[in-house]
Amino acid sequence: MDIGLIGLGRMGAGIAKTLLRNGNRLTVYNRTRSRAESLGKEGAKVASSVVEACEGGVVLTMLADDAALESMVLGESGILRSLRRGGVHISLSTISVALSDRLAVEHAAAGQEFVSAPVFGRPEAAENGKLAVVAAGAKSAVEACRPILEVLGPKLLVIGERPSMANVVKLTGNFLIATVLESLSEALAFARKSGVDAAAVLDFLTSTLFNAPVYKTYGALIVEGKHDQVGFALPLGLKDVRLVLQAAEAQNVPMPVASVVRDRFVTAMARGNADKDWSVLGRIAAEDAGLARAHHA
Amino acid sequence: MDIGLIGLGRMGAGIAKTLLRNGNRLTVYNRTRSRAESLGKEGAKVASSVVEACEGGVVLTMLADDAALESMVLGESGILRSLRRGGVHISLSTISVALSDRLAVEHAAAGQEFVSAPVFGRPEAAENGKLAVVAAGAKSAVEACRPILEVLGPKLLVIGERPSMANVVKLTGNFLIATVLESLSEALAFARKSGVDAAAVLDFLTSTLFNAPVYKTYGALIVEGKHDQVGFALPLGLKDVRLVLQAAEAQNVPMPVASVVRDRFVTAMARGNADKDWSVLGRIAAEDAGLARAHHA
Repeated sequence: MDIGLIGLGRMGAGIAKTLLRNGNRLTVYNRTRSRAESLGKEGAKVASSVVEACEGGVVLTMLADDAALESMVLGESGILRSLRRGGVHISLSTISVALSDRLAVEHAAAGQEFVSAPVFGRPEAAENGKLAVVAAGAKSAVEACRPILEVLGPKLLVIGERPSMANVVKLTGNFLIATVLESLSEALAFARKSGVDAAAVLDFLTSTLFNAPVYKTYGALIVEGKHDQVGFALPLGLKDVRLVLQAAEAQNVPMPVASVVRDRFVTAMARGNADKDWSVLGRIAAEDAGLARAHHA
Repeated sequence: MDIGLIGLGRMGAGIAKTLLRNGNRLTVYNRTRSRAESLGKEGAKVASSVVEACEGGVVLTMLADDAALESMVLGESGILRSLRRGGVHISLSTISVALSDRLAVEHAAAGQEFVSAPVFGRPEAAENGKLAVVAAGAKSAVEACRPILEVLGPKLLVIGERPSMANVVKLTGNFLIATVLESLSEALAFARKSGVDAAAVLDFLTSTLFNAPVYKTYGALIVEGKHDQVGFALPLGLKDVRLVLQAAEAQNVPMPVASVVRDRFVTAMARGNADKDWSVLGRIAAEDAGLARAHHA
């Protein structure tokens, strides 16, 4: 397929490599051109404008947040004015439900299709075609995009015809991960303060009831107090919980645990951890329990 | 081995069957004698007093809560006065850290050993020897009990020499399960209210990041709104979160998520769900979001 891809951060660059490896003709665009050029060496065509990236009629976006995607789509020389009628915009970013709804309206008014397809997984998973993808949009549009989405990873859920439904699922998942972080942080601080070996407790729990990747990965980071290597930055975690709470409030859904977790992220920001991985919640719980920072510190 | 077992609720009865199946000579005692008699048909000796159950020198207890265990151990004609010097009391119940510490002191003063060995798993797991066990106590006592504990299930963690350490681990685990219940309840209420198929979201999440028994089992109960069949009753869930908060407060460990979850259990009690499974938190979240009770109702 002839595909455009806009946004070449760590996730976008990984996805570009996967699309190229699977034989797609890919045109890439990034505001900072140097990132696009390194992909040029791997076979991508480097676009110098958004309109060039939209020429094939199918354009993917992978941007950091609402503001970045909004200006990329609705701004002057943006996607809305660059994509032909009948063209498809597939948004892979984690954005608000409200923006997703708005883009659906704008694209429809321009005679274009809008598919929302946020992804679960780290940059390595993006590069290796191991993402889990949730897609929503008009049936015909989603089916037309299926060959692209299936290349991104082994797991694709098509959840409905309103694009923002996919964003609901993505935010739901990130809320659950954030809750795992905070509850593990509290649990392990309690265990440590009670004189119990936190690593042994974690190993026991994650080899029985909590035998899931998310508990093992983040539990280990919390036990070891390792938050400098950033897989997912604290401000992005805070952003996602904020988006969940906004979308839930819009539907009159109270989420008491989400509210607490948001406050814990805010505390972590206040204590100067903006450059840390979001697992730094473990440090906050330890500090609040009067414990030294890391288990082995 | 010649073992006494006191407390024949669903968990205790299951454990009795497992011990009998593995060739132990078992003497059982229960306040309500009829429960003991049905085990008599399966080869157990039915004791008519606590002292009879203590004759072998090793006695296990599986009782509902602190009050029941406290009176069974410290009451007149209780275990403390019935067990010989050098005898071992293995407590399998989910009790407070404080009571566990107190029993350790009392048994030591009586020249007896005390091993705390709470278990994870439902009655079926108890009956089939599939429990996960966390044990703590004096090294020699725990090693002497090992053949008994290993029969209960495939997973045994020995966490330390202070018996209450095992209770810390058990309470930590139950706190994490309770948090899964509440966070899933909030997440699925948000999804449903947003028009998204909760069953599809659950299936997606539990086949990717949250691929763990606890998410699958309880997620299904929440999606289906099935809380009448009681695996673990709401009041017991509330009790365990209360015990976590008490033990954490005693160590000066704040647990903000645990505090919220406690309040959700209290709300569920207030709405008349004392006879329901603790997964009824799903109904509370749905009600608070203005949703009809069950997804398929």
